[in-house]
Amino acid sequence: MKVLVINCGSSSLKYQLIDSESEIALASGLCERIGIDGKLIHKPTGGEKKTFDVQMDNHEVAIKLVLDALTDKEHGVITSLDEIGAVGHRVVHGGEKFASSTVITEEVLKAIEECNELAPLHNPANLIGINACKRLMKDVPMVAVFDTAFHQTMPEKAYLYGLPYEYYEKYKIRRYGFHGTSHSYVSERAYEMTGLDKNNSKVIVCHLGNGASVTAVKNGESIDTSMGLTPLEGLIMGTRSGDIDPAIIEFIAKKENLNLSEVLNVLNKKSGMLGLSGTTSDFRDILAASKEGNKRAIIAWETFAYHVTKYIGAYTAAMNGVDAICFTAGLGENNGAMRALICSYLGYLGVELDEELNSRYGEDLVVSTSNSKVKICMIPTNEELKIARETVALV
Amino acid sequence: MKVLVINCGSSSLKYQLIDSESEIALASGLCERIGIDGKLIHKPTGGEKKTFDVQMDNHEVAIKLVLDALTDKEHGVITSLDEIGAVGHRVVHGGEKFASSTVITEEVLKAIEECNELAPLHNPANLIGINACKRLMKDVPMVAVFDTAFHQTMPEKAYLYGLPYEYYEKYKIRRYGFHGTSHSYVSERAYEMTGLDKNNSKVIVCHLGNGASVTAVKNGESIDTSMGLTPLEGLIMGTRSGDIDPAIIEFIAKKENLNLSEVLNVLNKKSGMLGLSGTTSDFRDILAASKEGNKRAIIAWETFAYHVTKYIGAYTAAMNGVDAICFTAGLGENNGAMRALICSYLGYLGVELDEELNSRYGEDLVVSTSNSKVKICMIPTNEELKIARETVALV
Repeated sequence: MKVLVINCGSSSLKYQLIDSESEIALASGLCERIGIDGKLIHKPTGGEKKTFDVQMDNHEVAIKLVLDALTDKEHGVITSLDEIGAVGHRVVHGGEKFASSTVITEEVLKAIEECNELAPLHNPANLIGINACKRLMKDVPMVAVFDTAFHQTMPEKAYLYGLPYEYYEKYKIRRYGFHGTSHSYVSERAYEMTGLDKNNSKVIVCHLGNGASVTAVKNGESIDTSMGLTPLEGLIMGTRSGDIDPAIIEFIAKKENLNLSEVLNVLNKKSGMLGLSGTTSDFRDILAASKEGNKRAIIAWETFAYHVTKYIGAYTAAMNGVDAICFTAGLGENNGAMRALICSYLGYLGVELDEELNSRYGEDLVVSTSNSKVKICMIPTNEELKIARETVALV
Repeated sequence: MKVLVINCGSSSLKYQLIDSESEIALASGLCERIGIDGKLIHKPTGGEKKTFDVQMDNHEVAIKLVLDALTDKEHGVITSLDEIGAVGHRVVHGGEKFASSTVITEEVLKAIEECNELAPLHNPANLIGINACKRLMKDVPMVAVFDTAFHQTMPEKAYLYGLPYEYYEKYKIRRYGFHGTSHSYVSERAYEMTGLDKNNSKVIVCHLGNGASVTAVKNGESIDTSMGLTPLEGLIMGTRSGDIDPAIIEFIAKKENLNLSEVLNVLNKKSGMLGLSGTTSDFRDILAASKEGNKRAIIAWETFAYHVTKYIGAYTAAMNGVDAICFTAGLGENNGAMRALICSYLGYLGVELDEELNSRYGEDLVVSTSNSKVKICMIPTNEELKIARETVALV
């Protein structure tokens, strides 16, 4: 079956058309600046990237253009829309309602809408994308795949904050976690690569990209994760602060004369690696600058690694041990220096990195030595493939 | 030398008179409700506790009453104030200015005052106590012992947050940590009890009381600690939330229609064990209720233990191993059930608890088996004695 995977943001839309038998993406692309002016970047696999500047007044127009590109005689990859057997939609927040992917019905749409206040920037955009697809592909089954669903197995001790319990009862304030599709995909891949028995395994997945999170996966289930009610908590990220003393918010508000949402904006958009380095949120630039001796870049790099290390240590304790630690996403799957720095703390677990293997990047590879007591894996994530798989399984 | 140790709060004052040669407290006591009405509880060691309801308009009056009680013919323990060789003052926040205890001079008083904005509830009260003592005991040398000083050895990667770096430069927003006197005292005691070489040691101290924090002590120096800019960060505490997603503050503010400082008040005073249990911040009551099957008490108890465990795991990674884990303060030194629950996660480190030893409480004791790869210690903290020692060393 050919599955169209859609990841819809407020003014952007990413897509892939995946053949579920071969698990190969036939084409992929991106619509940008929807509602502003509009740009479509479309790439048939193995073919050339095409860029179109086209007015996109809304997401429906954007999706229409995507479908046109997919069926275009020149750069298309299918001859008719009938070939699309299903659409898989990434949805950021499924709250406590969705512990797994689900076929989209009117009821499901309502339930997703009820999660809007938990992800006010993301869920409404996801819904717009779903509704636009429904209008354009009336008879094609659609599936929602949630970023939060994989983490719904967390026990209370991991998802409850030390807050008045009624905030959980009334407002559902709790840890949800994100990147679930990636953490799930990577942990599954780790069982295959290392021969671990999923039902008797302790795996830590470090999804280290511009957004970053760590998850403890015990016997195939997420038992804890570093992102919380929102994707702001946890690791230091590209522009997000991650964990801070909550009292700092009031301190900043007073000092900088900002209101609460302005401080949150600083924490989300001007902090993290950008804030520490003062120049960039891009890990590659920070590594390059730190190699040239830039003090702030060195601090940012080392502080990031240190925080990842502490989460690995914390989750090892949470699971009473660890069999495999996996690195994925932009930094995790591509940067041997960061993996090496993190693993340099983990000698006490019997971690032993193979320098030569670890110098490679972007492939599924066990990069620890055969003597290492914990397997260290680098695994390129593939959230689109995971969404396609979930979609096919349900339609 | 006899040292008077003073711990001054905004409306309270705790004291001990300690003989520095024998290291025994000759008397201890507490003034409450200063500026409201006033109550003095005074106890000569080995003698009976005396309670006096006396009007205390300010801290100077309170200290005058303490000095009277110490020299009283009936329940006093010294014949004249001349016997007091020095006064040691607990000061909560020494910022980056004080990496160790210091003799109080006019310059030091100014420097402490400059730290007021970092601890607006505590430092001003500490200063009031110091000034009152100075007026009443003009020629007695006085020493300030800071809660934060022990943690000033933390490296940048541990004390910097993922915030715009200029907030650190301009406002000194960073992790400071607290309970330093306790963490220092307990780690020193651990070297003695376990025979560890301080200069080649990795120790984790869990100060678990109504306020609670965990510190990683490597080669005698604090390299990381769970409290941050303020004592709100870190573990779930009696009434404090500890770590939360910073975005939760805005979520609560909107839902509960509270302003920022009202939300912070909830996080400081209505959260933690009190918030989770809904009934009490007292760990003994929570344990009792959980034994009776109270679901919320069980959740609070288990969540607290889980968070301590994660910090132990994180700091073990931060130090690349751990030689000894110490439990101190109300819960840590007295509650075998909590120690056992935490240690039940730590089998992967080779931790083995001796059940019989661990059933004891309130004494300096290694409670792990002789086979345990990590020594588990219970060590009653004694911040007053540590303050007295620091004071004697400086005068």
